[in-house]
Amino acid sequence: VEVVYEYGAVPALLFEQPPLPGLSRWAPLLPPVDPRLSLGEGGTALVDAPSIAADLGVDRVCLKNESANPTWSHKDRFNFVVVSAAVREGAPGVVLATSGNHGISAAAYAARAGLKCVVLIRDTTPAAVKAAMLAHGATVVVVPWAKRLSLMGELRDKLGYHPISNCDPQVVVGHSFGPEGYKTIAYELFLQLDRRPPSVVYVPTGIGELLFGVAKGFAELKQLGLTATVPRLVACEPAARAPLTQAVATGTLSARVADAPTDAHSIGVLMNSARGAIALRQTNGWTAPVTDDALRRARQRMARAGVWAELSAAAAVAGLEHDLARDRRADGTVVCLVTSSGFKDGAGDLAVPRAQDWESLSAALQARGHVLP
Amino acid sequence: VEVVYEYGAVPALLFEQPPLPGLSRWAPLLPPVDPRLSLGEGGTALVDAPSIAADLGVDRVCLKNESANPTWSHKDRFNFVVVSAAVREGAPGVVLATSGNHGISAAAYAARAGLKCVVLIRDTTPAAVKAAMLAHGATVVVVPWAKRLSLMGELRDKLGYHPISNCDPQVVVGHSFGPEGYKTIAYELFLQLDRRPPSVVYVPTGIGELLFGVAKGFAELKQLGLTATVPRLVACEPAARAPLTQAVATGTLSARVADAPTDAHSIGVLMNSARGAIALRQTNGWTAPVTDDALRRARQRMARAGVWAELSAAAAVAGLEHDLARDRRADGTVVCLVTSSGFKDGAGDLAVPRAQDWESLSAALQARGHVLP
Repeated sequence: VEVVYEYGAVPALLFEQPPLPGLSRWAPLLPPVDPRLSLGEGGTALVDAPSIAADLGVDRVCLKNESANPTWSHKDRFNFVVVSAAVREGAPGVVLATSGNHGISAAAYAARAGLKCVVLIRDTTPAAVKAAMLAHGATVVVVPWAKRLSLMGELRDKLGYHPISNCDPQVVVGHSFGPEGYKTIAYELFLQLDRRPPSVVYVPTGIGELLFGVAKGFAELKQLGLTATVPRLVACEPAARAPLTQAVATGTLSARVADAPTDAHSIGVLMNSARGAIALRQTNGWTAPVTDDALRRARQRMARAGVWAELSAAAAVAGLEHDLARDRRADGTVVCLVTSSGFKDGAGDLAVPRAQDWESLSAALQARGHVLP
Repeated sequence: VEVVYEYGAVPALLFEQPPLPGLSRWAPLLPPVDPRLSLGEGGTALVDAPSIAADLGVDRVCLKNESANPTWSHKDRFNFVVVSAAVREGAPGVVLATSGNHGISAAAYAARAGLKCVVLIRDTTPAAVKAAMLAHGATVVVVPWAKRLSLMGELRDKLGYHPISNCDPQVVVGHSFGPEGYKTIAYELFLQLDRRPPSVVYVPTGIGELLFGVAKGFAELKQLGLTATVPRLVACEPAARAPLTQAVATGTLSARVADAPTDAHSIGVLMNSARGAIALRQTNGWTAPVTDDALRRARQRMARAGVWAELSAAAAVAGLEHDLARDRRADGTVVCLVTSSGFKDGAGDLAVPRAQDWESLSAALQARGHVLP
């Protein structure tokens, strides 16, 4: 399903407004949304990262900080639109299978809409993520991951719950309206960069729906005559499982790869959505497979610039580093999407030093690089 | 120290701009700030909460969602301004003692500024909070809480680190410039409510510096001739330790109370800052002491409206409930500040059901209120 609009009927002043939070402002270019469901999603800051630009030797790197959304990930753009659709269809609830962020966000919007929400998870889901879903009143159930699609199908068929993640065992594709929410990232970037699209946008990529949404947003800006060019998009996948890289290499739209371990829980998938491959073709983009070590380095680099990301959300900066190491460099402004907060990974209890007095405190400081008199 | 400005010299169009993220936009009414340190703080959404308004029987309740800041709390407004001051003074680092949010935020801004950051904590600090501070490269040390002020003094005197939380053993007062950051909340509320101040603002209150900042922001709007009225402010303190309530009752500016347990770690203090009491006097405000049980109820109510708050950050909604239970009600729009994210409390591992197949899943759903055919 592809969603199109009567672009000639879009209000002339739609793109004269400031990119404030609240996606209802983009309603003329969205499926029917219920403004009462809005949590003030979107309108996230574009954070200049001069330390990253200097370290990597590029002109300008900006971080689009999606961790400043209502449930601290980009998924809020998706769920505002998709839960609106569930309400409109009269569904009594929504159901999804998720690694984390999507579930927290869906639980929040479903709660606001007064809908039931069933979230199917793996038993590896961090406690912090479960706590967030449960706080919003979702029913959270650990299921065998291989059975998640059929169980979602039962909830759809028997209870009439609206599925808001893929439940088709043959084809990987998200909810048709999801990328409609994501595309507002492109609108905001256009306005935040003084009505000039960036040269390249690096995108943390799982099945590729975010990639597709961002590409669509820029394509619409071009169609509306607001820009002559669109940025090239880079799909940043875990190297351990990189179906889109595989699809590009083999000239197909969708590929399946073997399971292999990665700590990038939110983007480690075995099969990509064809829409991700279409987005790369449309924008003349490419993929950047990144190792877990590269993700950890990128996350640290970002934290030193002031933005603490979920490991998966560091994929864009890791992808930029990956390209630069191969002499693939862009002029002008490069944007890296930061999809989610560092809190989402959960935290083991980290050891920190203890001090009883100035002697023990100063020793601890000295051991950590502080200069004492 | 009180900070004043040449109000006659404020640019006429300052309050004609949209309340986007990035506090540098308010520079004419701030101490000298370094725009390069900005992480896109502020510009947070004002979220209508019709379910809370209906439950409580008031006209309109709006949540000012400070958990959508760069480090997911209101403290980012504080630290943008205060770390700018540390840089300007040429300090090699900053030092603070904190229950959590302030430390994460300070660590992020110090990292961005290239300053050392020492955070003194208690051993009860949640693992997630420590993880965030450490990610930004802060030196985190557990110290005996009674010694924190003297140890901060040593770091100030011996290493020249700029103290950014109170280190005066006699008087409780934060950094002079901190409330200058907080006051931008008032500016944004004014613009978000179509240039009309709300009737009442409920404020989660520890020592009272946020309260003072918000009061100052509205007072400045009045001084600039932008509004004729200012809202009444309500200081929402843990009932177990409510020094400001005590100060008001005894007609003093600052009171000390006995230690007593509360789970509201971020606002449970034994002594208030006189500035908090001044803010209440200036706005004809009052205090609302709230129990931990009331905080938990308020947090759940907020989560069902789509906003998952730290327990301490639920104090404003709990304060509103406290007042309504005593027939103290305001007409018009009531604003509740939500200072921080639910992730900040940390999470024990919550038990969720497991299901192997449709039979066990449907049983789990039925037990949780889902209607099965």
